[in-house]
Amino acid sequence: MAQKPSIPKGMRDFSPVEVAKRTYIFETIKSVFKLYGYQPIETPTMENLSSLLGKYGDEGDKLLFKVLNSGDFTRGADLTSDNLPRLATQICEKGLRYDLTVPFARYVVQHQNEITFPFKRYQIQPVWRADRPQKGRYREFYQCDVDVVGSDSLLFEAELMSIVGDVFSRLGINVALKINNRKLLYGIAQTIGFPEKMVDITVAIDKLDKIGLDAVNAELIERGLTQEAVEALKPILQLSGDNDQKISQLREILKGSETGQKGLDEMQEIFRLYSLTQKTGLSVELDLSLARGLSYYTGAIFEVKALDHAIGSISGGGRYDELTAIFGLKGVSGVGISFGADRIYDVMEALELFPDESITTTDALFVNFGAQEQDAIIPLLTTLRAKGISVELYPKADKLKKQFDYAQKKGIRYMIFIGSQEIEDQMATVKDIIIGEQCSVAFDKLENIVK
Amino acid sequence: MAQKPSIPKGMRDFSPVEVAKRTYIFETIKSVFKLYGYQPIETPTMENLSSLLGKYGDEGDKLLFKVLNSGDFTRGADLTSDNLPRLATQICEKGLRYDLTVPFARYVVQHQNEITFPFKRYQIQPVWRADRPQKGRYREFYQCDVDVVGSDSLLFEAELMSIVGDVFSRLGINVALKINNRKLLYGIAQTIGFPEKMVDITVAIDKLDKIGLDAVNAELIERGLTQEAVEALKPILQLSGDNDQKISQLREILKGSETGQKGLDEMQEIFRLYSLTQKTGLSVELDLSLARGLSYYTGAIFEVKALDHAIGSISGGGRYDELTAIFGLKGVSGVGISFGADRIYDVMEALELFPDESITTTDALFVNFGAQEQDAIIPLLTTLRAKGISVELYPKADKLKKQFDYAQKKGIRYMIFIGSQEIEDQMATVKDIIIGEQCSVAFDKLENIVK
Repeated sequence: MAQKPSIPKGMRDFSPVEVAKRTYIFETIKSVFKLYGYQPIETPTMENLSSLLGKYGDEGDKLLFKVLNSGDFTRGADLTSDNLPRLATQICEKGLRYDLTVPFARYVVQHQNEITFPFKRYQIQPVWRADRPQKGRYREFYQCDVDVVGSDSLLFEAELMSIVGDVFSRLGINVALKINNRKLLYGIAQTIGFPEKMVDITVAIDKLDKIGLDAVNAELIERGLTQEAVEALKPILQLSGDNDQKISQLREILKGSETGQKGLDEMQEIFRLYSLTQKTGLSVELDLSLARGLSYYTGAIFEVKALDHAIGSISGGGRYDELTAIFGLKGVSGVGISFGADRIYDVMEALELFPDESITTTDALFVNFGAQEQDAIIPLLTTLRAKGISVELYPKADKLKKQFDYAQKKGIRYMIFIGSQEIEDQMATVKDIIIGEQCSVAFDKLENIVK
Repeated sequence: MAQKPSIPKGMRDFSPVEVAKRTYIFETIKSVFKLYGYQPIETPTMENLSSLLGKYGDEGDKLLFKVLNSGDFTRGADLTSDNLPRLATQICEKGLRYDLTVPFARYVVQHQNEITFPFKRYQIQPVWRADRPQKGRYREFYQCDVDVVGSDSLLFEAELMSIVGDVFSRLGINVALKINNRKLLYGIAQTIGFPEKMVDITVAIDKLDKIGLDAVNAELIERGLTQEAVEALKPILQLSGDNDQKISQLREILKGSETGQKGLDEMQEIFRLYSLTQKTGLSVELDLSLARGLSYYTGAIFEVKALDHAIGSISGGGRYDELTAIFGLKGVSGVGISFGADRIYDVMEALELFPDESITTTDALFVNFGAQEQDAIIPLLTTLRAKGISVELYPKADKLKKQFDYAQKKGIRYMIFIGSQEIEDQMATVKDIIIGEQCSVAFDKLENIVK
């Protein structure tokens, strides 16, 4: 009995046009990464579950896709246990890649003797999360990560900002880059008297955009801050002026925090280095309300938002000092940024930013009038393909309407007609579907018309 | 406690050089597919297990990687059952893609109303099999499939042969294409009196190359053929001459089999159409001992072998008349061929066929002499990258030896030295590491040297 075909929820098929558009995004991003000397690596779809568990928090552990062991998967498993997480690890020793960061850390440690440091790598691969599917959120999606590890030079923060600018300018998306620094967030927590509550404070102020200052303050009180501390925080979150002005105000505000001062030094140097690149066009803003949840960030943090389409962050990252420590390699500082291909796709689709050339298709279709004409056309196909022109012969002498429909649906611009008269004259009739004109072209000159 | 990092057996990390070489293979194959009007699709990593089970035989079912259900995976499962395959389907409703053929059939049926037929598609994605890992066999590997469905025209068999020729000529691999036809195999089985044993016969003669004629004959007897039938088969398997000569001998031998005659008509037309392409360089041989296991083939079958490196088949495929019937869509004939990227990689590596240009790296490294020099270099990086030149600045003023090592290990050809004197003169010293020469170049002329 035939099955009604479907795919698992949260997963997607991609049609030729969709693949072409996605390829356009990936190739654009890659071309920029390469200009800066980043090189690609790839890691396996499956990692040992032990490499993944505990790296993304309790919630992350639940969202990991686990792969059933081959053979007798029940061997050694306590099937009567109602401890599901433990049972899962007894019958599954592998899991699907959840992000590109942990596999990258694993890769760096495992291959540390083959790697030239600083190691500038990019990685563009799918990841899987058993999230509840919803509009714009999928269970299989691509990440495009660019990182450098083995150097604490702030040159790389400035370089990544420059990469962000280049990528979005090539894609035609207007963006704003927000930047903050974990050391500033710690300095602020210290200054208002709650250094141990830095995470609570950052989680709360991360919501400033969404829920407003009053709600943030209420949450901070709930998380154990005093009214006095909340009052002290308020002017800090409402700092105004350009980046230089904010930095000089913070110099004063954070004067009691060594870490805070260090963060300011870093920000000042990052802005200075970035200004030396003489890049314009990218708006860069120091935003103290930018927190980013990931606990491994230790220095600068970045977030990119599209200006002309509301969709949340389309890129983000930061500096981490001890990412590889989880796999036993200490003292390797790194900084990186990740581009969200699916959201970038949605922005480009909404703003109609995909150029026509991004959707490649066959250059010309030869109409099929029958066996004899077909035989005359085949050698022409060989010649044109050898010149780099993509051509097809419609496979049988169907009605012209049907052949025309085929060309049109596939977006093919030129139709080439070769009937008995054309064979005698060695001249083809070429019709340009877009401008609606046709002309007569010698067989051996076809390459000039079609490309 | 730190974990010793590792990856699951049969899986691989790919280093920058490996990714570059693999990309070279994929891009070459894609460029040829596109010339013939094939377009890319992608399907999800996970399919519903029900779409996969039963499609690859009992052995295939065992080799499918199954993904544990999210949440309470034990709900509704009979954990006390010792029927492992059934238990597996109770706790797993998804599986990893095992090949690209079944997902393609599922895609065609699911999207039949959006597709323009004949549908010429290619698909380059990884697949997963829980095979015992061994040299050259992995649990995650890429397939590169090109198929056309919705036409029974033999033009496409000839087209695929032409694609095989183009792909391997671009990659620089000498290959031989062997071709046979399921209808001929049936005709032979009919002629020797055992039509119902076609599969047994093809399985046995498939081993002719490996085990020799005597062993094949012994196996055929074991599989229930009479001595007389085996004697009748012998001359057929030892037919000699060129393709035309084989066909005319078979016309006579298979004169009692209508299907056999139909197979001969097909082969004759395929060879005729292929000869019209005026392609040379690819050796094409009708080989009656070519069987290919997959049961869905109904017409021509293909296999490609590398001539200068023994590694088995590096490409293969054939005509199938009812592939989509498993998902409820009947009467859609198709033909396709699959390129084995991993074996192609191994051949190219063994024969040193990867061109130097396939391994892209940074064009030039700016040596770092310190903070002041660094500041002078940063704007030059921007200028050169805008011209499409890939450049890096070494991130700190390490010893020259260390900076040189970095360039060398990364395969960077040019090192650019800008010290205080160079800044004063606005002239950089550029060293070509490959030819060992150096020269002085004005800052604003650097782009001419480096590319």
